[in-house]
Amino acid sequence: MDLEENIIAPKLLTAMRYTLFSGGKRLRPILTRMTAELLAGDVVSALKVGAALEMIHTYSLIHDDLPSMDNDDFRRGKATNHRVYGEGIAILAGDGLLTYAFNILANLSLPAERIVRIIQLISDGAGINGMVAGQVLDLEAEDRKIGLKELKEIHRAKTGALFRTAILAGAFCADPEDKEIDALRKYANYLGLTFQIVDDILDVIGDEDKLGKKTGSDEELNKATYPKLIGLDQARAEAENTATLAREALNMFGEKADNLLQLIDYILIRQS
Amino acid sequence: MDLEENIIAPKLLTAMRYTLFSGGKRLRPILTRMTAELLAGDVVSALKVGAALEMIHTYSLIHDDLPSMDNDDFRRGKATNHRVYGEGIAILAGDGLLTYAFNILANLSLPAERIVRIIQLISDGAGINGMVAGQVLDLEAEDRKIGLKELKEIHRAKTGALFRTAILAGAFCADPEDKEIDALRKYANYLGLTFQIVDDILDVIGDEDKLGKKTGSDEELNKATYPKLIGLDQARAEAENTATLAREALNMFGEKADNLLQLIDYILIRQS
Repeated sequence: MDLEENIIAPKLLTAMRYTLFSGGKRLRPILTRMTAELLAGDVVSALKVGAALEMIHTYSLIHDDLPSMDNDDFRRGKATNHRVYGEGIAILAGDGLLTYAFNILANLSLPAERIVRIIQLISDGAGINGMVAGQVLDLEAEDRKIGLKELKEIHRAKTGALFRTAILAGAFCADPEDKEIDALRKYANYLGLTFQIVDDILDVIGDEDKLGKKTGSDEELNKATYPKLIGLDQARAEAENTATLAREALNMFGEKADNLLQLIDYILIRQS
Repeated sequence: MDLEENIIAPKLLTAMRYTLFSGGKRLRPILTRMTAELLAGDVVSALKVGAALEMIHTYSLIHDDLPSMDNDDFRRGKATNHRVYGEGIAILAGDGLLTYAFNILANLSLPAERIVRIIQLISDGAGINGMVAGQVLDLEAEDRKIGLKELKEIHRAKTGALFRTAILAGAFCADPEDKEIDALRKYANYLGLTFQIVDDILDVIGDEDKLGKKTGSDEELNKATYPKLIGLDQARAEAENTATLAREALNMFGEKADNLLQLIDYILIRQS
């Protein structure tokens, strides 16, 4: 599909682009590419998979920001999608991004078996036992007390699933062995958890300008967070702990995994 | 994925099921199955493809009914999804259905090449140049005058795309020849157009009980419809005309296409 020439609803494309190209860390595409490179896979395919994942991530942000969800006016220092284009178009821009992501994946230049494997992974991680479930649990958790175990489950579903998916989908841009998949899955789980704990900590102590969103907003909504449940110091220790476990998971790859190792530190010390 | 055992957000599944199993004509699965049978394809796969299409159709209904879109309180005689579960869960139920549809497709028991082909088709038809674009045009058309050409484009995008997709995806449950694909694509386009014109007519004259929704609602919203643009009699003639063209497209299949032929009449004379 030639996106530029065929589009019949230009406003939709404009709204999709608005949030897709509003910055962000691009962690998922970076993970997909690094993993494909680690296993000597096809980098062009990995970049396309990364783009698809970024679209899925962006759709979830647009929908999460809506008044009936988190009701956020700003994201990455800019007005949220529905504040600019209205709720109707914002919902459809999210729908369009999700659907287009699968279109990109279905048109990858990889053996069909591996394309199918990648779509299985991504539709699983982004779906009703992954990211969407996470957002439901998140919504439900706003108005009642939840414990640490449940909090970890929410994070595993919401953030963990997309990290895991980004890394394993990158692996299938190569021809991975089972033990490599196992190690990468472990790395992905601990990396995702580290990311989320740091995110919670930043929400409490982070600098509003650097984050581009209002800090303390999770607390306002009465959301469960690591600092709230176990205190700021314990949350920091927990992040160090999960980071160490992520490092250990990469042992089998030796020096080849240097980029993925550095990424753990980047996530651990990030300020925004 | 075992849906029953693994689900971590039961409320999400309940909301998805609520609209998915609230009736409906199941036209898309019927088309997928009939087309697969016409070409001696795998019927079990066709039923799964049909289920995925019905999920995509249902997600679009849930999102279209939202207050920021068509703002409908009833659908098929029941309260709409957001009226029962709230807007946030309704949006997520739609997201979940769309993502799960691709998960079902990626797990079909067909040669990987054909699975990829089916996902290409469906992500195209349901996407930013298909169904989602149609809904954007529909939203935009509510408050300005549009012509017949533009109306046909909206319908082609919104209804036509899913009819076309249902029929061609059914064809790839078999191993179709190019000329068969061409004929079926033509049939699908005319069938979809017939369906939409009849839908517009029913909205003006239909019996409220049989339709399960308030008639005249399109007019209230100042939406362009066939009866409004060319009058009721001309709209009826146009439906007969497109039905004839749909019949002619099936000529090459002879008697084998009897079921698909009967479906045209069913669509033409339906009361709801």
